[in-house]
Amino acid sequence: MAFFAATAAERDHAGGTPKAERDRLRESGLLAMIIPSQYGGLGATWRATLEVVRAFAQVDSSLAHLFGFQHLMLATVRLFGHRRQWEPWYENTARRQWFWGNALNPLDRRTVCRRCEGWREFSGRKSFCSGAIDSEMLVASAHEPGQEGIVVAALPTARSGISLSHDWDNMGQRQTDSGSVTFERVRVDEAEILSDPGPLSTPRACLRPLIAQNILTHIYVGIAEGAFDEARRYALNETRPWHTSGVARIEEDPYVLAHFGEFLIGLESARTLAQRAADLLDEAWSEGDALGERQRGALAIQSAVAKVAASRVGLEICSRMFEVTGARSTHAALRLDRHWRNLRTHTLHDPVDYKVKELGEFALMDKLPTPSFYS
Amino acid sequence: MAFFAATAAERDHAGGTPKAERDRLRESGLLAMIIPSQYGGLGATWRATLEVVRAFAQVDSSLAHLFGFQHLMLATVRLFGHRRQWEPWYENTARRQWFWGNALNPLDRRTVCRRCEGWREFSGRKSFCSGAIDSEMLVASAHEPGQEGIVVAALPTARSGISLSHDWDNMGQRQTDSGSVTFERVRVDEAEILSDPGPLSTPRACLRPLIAQNILTHIYVGIAEGAFDEARRYALNETRPWHTSGVARIEEDPYVLAHFGEFLIGLESARTLAQRAADLLDEAWSEGDALGERQRGALAIQSAVAKVAASRVGLEICSRMFEVTGARSTHAALRLDRHWRNLRTHTLHDPVDYKVKELGEFALMDKLPTPSFYS
Amino acid sequence: MAFFAATAAERDHAGGTPKAERDRLRESGLLAMIIPSQYGGLGATWRATLEVVRAFAQVDSSLAHLFGFQHLMLATVRLFGHRRQWEPWYENTARRQWFWGNALNPLDRRTVCRRCEGWREFSGRKSFCSGAIDSEMLVASAHEPGQEGIVVAALPTARSGISLSHDWDNMGQRQTDSGSVTFERVRVDEAEILSDPGPLSTPRACLRPLIAQNILTHIYVGIAEGAFDEARRYALNETRPWHTSGVARIEEDPYVLAHFGEFLIGLESARTLAQRAADLLDEAWSEGDALGERQRGALAIQSAVAKVAASRVGLEICSRMFEVTGARSTHAALRLDRHWRNLRTHTLHDPVDYKVKELGEFALMDKLPTPSFYS
Amino acid sequence: MAFFAATAAERDHAGGTPKAERDRLRESGLLAMIIPSQYGGLGATWRATLEVVRAFAQVDSSLAHLFGFQHLMLATVRLFGHRRQWEPWYENTARRQWFWGNALNPLDRRTVCRRCEGWREFSGRKSFCSGAIDSEMLVASAHEPGQEGIVVAALPTARSGISLSHDWDNMGQRQTDSGSVTFERVRVDEAEILSDPGPLSTPRACLRPLIAQNILTHIYVGIAEGAFDEARRYALNETRPWHTSGVARIEEDPYVLAHFGEFLIGLESARTLAQRAADLLDEAWSEGDALGERQRGALAIQSAVAKVAASRVGLEICSRMFEVTGARSTHAALRLDRHWRNLRTHTLHDPVDYKVKELGEFALMDKLPTPSFYS
Repeated sequence: MAFFAATAAERDHAGGTPKAERDRLRESGLLAMIIPSQYGGLGATWRATLEVVRAFAQVDSSLAHLFGFQHLMLATVRLFGHRRQWEPWYENTARRQWFWGNALNPLDRRTVCRRCEGWREFSGRKSFCSGAIDSEMLVASAHEPGQEGIVVAALPTARSGISLSHDWDNMGQRQTDSGSVTFERVRVDEAEILSDPGPLSTPRACLRPLIAQNILTHIYVGIAEGAFDEARRYALNETRPWHTSGVARIEEDPYVLAHFGEFLIGLESARTLAQRAADLLDEAWSEGDALGERQRGALAIQSAVAKVAASRVGLEICSRMFEVTGARSTHAALRLDRHWRNLRTHTLHDPVDYKVKELGEFALMDKLPTPSFYS
Repeated sequence: MAFFAATAAERDHAGGTPKAERDRLRESGLLAMIIPSQYGGLGATWRATLEVVRAFAQVDSSLAHLFGFQHLMLATVRLFGHRRQWEPWYENTARRQWFWGNALNPLDRRTVCRRCEGWREFSGRKSFCSGAIDSEMLVASAHEPGQEGIVVAALPTARSGISLSHDWDNMGQRQTDSGSVTFERVRVDEAEILSDPGPLSTPRACLRPLIAQNILTHIYVGIAEGAFDEARRYALNETRPWHTSGVARIEEDPYVLAHFGEFLIGLESARTLAQRAADLLDEAWSEGDALGERQRGALAIQSAVAKVAASRVGLEICSRMFEVTGARSTHAALRLDRHWRNLRTHTLHDPVDYKVKELGEFALMDKLPTPSFYS
Repeated sequence: MAFFAATAAERDHAGGTPKAERDRLRESGLLAMIIPSQYGGLGATWRATLEVVRAFAQVDSSLAHLFGFQHLMLATVRLFGHRRQWEPWYENTARRQWFWGNALNPLDRRTVCRRCEGWREFSGRKSFCSGAIDSEMLVASAHEPGQEGIVVAALPTARSGISLSHDWDNMGQRQTDSGSVTFERVRVDEAEILSDPGPLSTPRACLRPLIAQNILTHIYVGIAEGAFDEARRYALNETRPWHTSGVARIEEDPYVLAHFGEFLIGLESARTLAQRAADLLDEAWSEGDALGERQRGALAIQSAVAKVAASRVGLEICSRMFEVTGARSTHAALRLDRHWRNLRTHTLHDPVDYKVKELGEFALMDKLPTPSFYS
Repeated sequence: MAFFAATAAERDHAGGTPKAERDRLRESGLLAMIIPSQYGGLGATWRATLEVVRAFAQVDSSLAHLFGFQHLMLATVRLFGHRRQWEPWYENTARRQWFWGNALNPLDRRTVCRRCEGWREFSGRKSFCSGAIDSEMLVASAHEPGQEGIVVAALPTARSGISLSHDWDNMGQRQTDSGSVTFERVRVDEAEILSDPGPLSTPRACLRPLIAQNILTHIYVGIAEGAFDEARRYALNETRPWHTSGVARIEEDPYVLAHFGEFLIGLESARTLAQRAADLLDEAWSEGDALGERQRGALAIQSAVAKVAASRVGLEICSRMFEVTGARSTHAALRLDRHWRNLRTHTLHDPVDYKVKELGEFALMDKLPTPSFYS
């Protein structure tokens, strides 16, 4: 992680594609972490994979995002597609260190799918396509006019007609390349369409959004941990006690200690909930096609609890950390504000209010969330 | 639990000693829950025992307190005393359904211990002696003039010179009999003194306050769960939506759902942290004398995190529950305020502020809490 | 106030009608505080009258409620009725120290109004009739079958057919006699009907609910101030610093000081907002019939802001006050929990959630609240 | 304000000195706002001057800072110096549109004052010198070895030996030029030393830090208001309701309305407290030398309450505003994060914790804050 940490602040300033870091990730073999060993991957659990997402987020939440979404794409082809589709993709990913990018955004309905003889054609734009640039494969969605639901396909990023825009310039998560992708009459073979069983078709296929939610949670927790670590280091090494505090060292200031105590309580809560949700995900995942709606729903609830808790704890720490580091820690070169900017940006992925509402429906009426790309 | 729940509200009103309930508890065999089966007990883990504390607290937090402190006393004689002391006490407790009361309050230094030839003499008062009334055995503490630390003994409640006052009349935890005990030249045999290894003498002996803290945490979580259950039931059955809400049923009110969502997030956080601390306690307990300071300290930190979280989540739910039940739910006969009164009373056992400070010292400097009767 | 304060705690225990205190209030002349001097009253402003409500609430929030509602009833007959109606009522109130009780509860539609020749007949029940017992006059509402809106009348409490139930037994505001009133074919003369201009008929008539809201706000602030005062006194005189605090006196404990600092910030916020709303009420009141919707609406917004703030600050102080007073302050005889019980009960009058929603509609769209009996 | 608002976002990006805006400010005559009309100024009250500070902060908090500190410097020379000193400075400021910069930082003790024959010599550095660049006059402080307290002087920025560093590059308040100033054997005439009555010498002289605190408060409130305005505009024009909300327009989303309601409550609280403190400042100011410690202390308390409230409300709004504007509002070009960055930076001027502690000492013991450069 030291390699990624070293330049994280300056890369936050630069934005753009972290090419060197992506290549280092390719070399590490971690892109195949969740891929079973029989296909050449590391065969890790979700718990372990998510711990790595969290570890990345502690030093660089853009990379955590890219690494997490790599695994979300790998899960997508597996959960929505047929074994004869994902097996070769898994093998190639493990062998050739393929990076997978995201062009599946069900709320952006501008990309349209037209049926042709033996193939289909995608045309239109997609926004928020994290990790599409410098990827080997894309998972893309499109709408068929007159049809409900969406068509999801996996296809090579280099396919003719696909163009990637370098138009991601946001206040946070600046190296996630979450810009737009344009499809101009892109040919998609039937074998590339993930229709067996298809998107959100079975309880098991409905694990996909929960994997996404758990990745987000672990990124949030990791950002908060990274902010805490920097605050701790800066306070211990740089911050002097306030002149009326009556103490000689920051470690003796009762209010500084109270802030750190609060940070720890928040982190432990969020971390413990995140880990429990990850364990439940592994349990649900290992059920295979036998996974029922009730178990999937219980996982959805615990994933939502963890995500809301992580979101709030993280925002609190990333903003309040300055109260223990003091005025001098606002120096631009330190870029200590990047933690708040990254987390604030990413926690808007889907609204906390509607997660809380779903939790309320469960709490009051024992109603499980209706599966969607966000629940 | 239905037996205890049925009269909980009216017993809250009455206060005093829940004699019928205490006898029912005796009959249940649960008083020997933590006692190993070789001594006639149920041989349960701390996790399981604390789950029962929590289950009691859901319906009657006074009984939860009495049941929890029974086990705190059983742990005290085991951790502070010699095997030849606690073995017969364990056997008798299991066989004769002894109830153990608390007269160990290290902050109240009014009880003095005088050394005599072959025995000692306790004289003075003790406050906050939960469960002393209607108990068979007491664990009592006293100070020896000129000595640091305290002397702890286990002795029959019926011992000559001990008198129990019916002077507990508080705003909450009204049936815990946490009143005062007076010792008037009470003879204590050397064999009743817990001096091998003695109070807080080894890392293992220092588990005692952590068991106390975990019992408190589980009572707090249970109270919050009980309040949540009553709020849910009342809202579903009695509460009508506000006349400008535009909805027909309370289950559709977006703000009511938001409150319930928040309650669930809080409960899941507190519950998960409490369960994790309980598991760590079982791990530390099973280390026996090999338990080291570091592991004991890590448990202290996680126990403190869970206790602070439970305290805050609980107070929030017990006060905010009325925002989903409405004005009519303040009718005195419902006694819905007892949840807040019980929790508010019990969460003052030791101050949250100093728990948070200890957590801050650990977070900032990796400093473990100094063992005491509260940490 | 010392007279009322002396027995406040024990009267909280007793519940029922504070007859001696009501009579003392009658003697004080304060029942005519808002009545112009030309009718024999004190001719006070709303700001001054509400300050007295707040002063009562600091020592006894039930009396504050009764005193506040006296003035709400006086405002009701003035705003809904004709000068030739309220003039004699005002004179009699000032001269004979009439106490006015409330039987106007628009959400309880069980009381029905039947039109007869030259008079009307009220039949049915009303709940939450604060101050009806031991009153000389009642303001009552009823529904006419097939008609929207409500009929409001002022009539002697002793009128044949009116019976007052001693059925108020709640967890808080225990001496407000907010029980039920039964009308059994009660004859109401046309001259007693407040129909010119009638309920909520003009912007000026719509001041009535805003007076109610401001009374509530001042009660909430007063309760919080009373809790703060008791916490301060108890802490200074009774509470010892925690044994690990390292300080000799509670006044030096950094966390105790932080709590008191927070209490002060909360109180100053709520108090300042309450006072500003009271001043705006006086301005709107002095406009007379010229009062426009915009000015009335602006007052509604500021009244809502103050009420929500007072409600939250108050609940926080009434619950957190124990963190500075400590475990011994839960002794039942002190009845320190009554502040929370009183405030929790009274803050459920109408839901905070829908007040916040109205404020949101104003903040986002500049939309003024629709006048109702709660806005 | 439109002129300043137009380029605020891009100037936040650029940092550095807002030369065009400073010149526009010079032309406006506002630099002499607090200067009495007999000296050519506008003769405004503090309340009015602070309202302008707040209005600037709504669109550009760096300019608000510069404008506010101009007036802090003008107050400094008046409160610490003799009439024959400040009269000509006031006249010149009004006539020649002098900008005053700050080099008074009592916590940075690196600048030393040496006494010479008939003059003194300042040598050393000062950090956090807001507005020094492009100023005509500086107020500077230095320490005399072996002496307590500080020496404060007003001198031309162009004086030989003074050099200004362009070294301010922070995460917020990026155009305040709060960098460092170096004094290299700078000659300071006795007539430039503010020693009659001198720094913090009388209750009146002790108004200086309270003016500083009130300026900060108004900047904080203004930033929050600016963030609120942008959130409102963006939400109304750009944000679509969440796909499961069941509403067609954002204005109907119950949770969006709740957020805006909370924002309004916060803003009204902070604004009202700020205005009240400003009025009290005008009252204290108008007392002249007759100002007593008690009145000065009461102002200090109300100023502290307002500042803490503004700080918290502001941070909350600047962070939560994104929950009503949504994911797309994180686009870098909008720079909506600048509100949080500006406020987070500026609220670290002096620690909230110690303000709250001072308030606690007043609340608990009626102890007024000890005057210092921060209280």
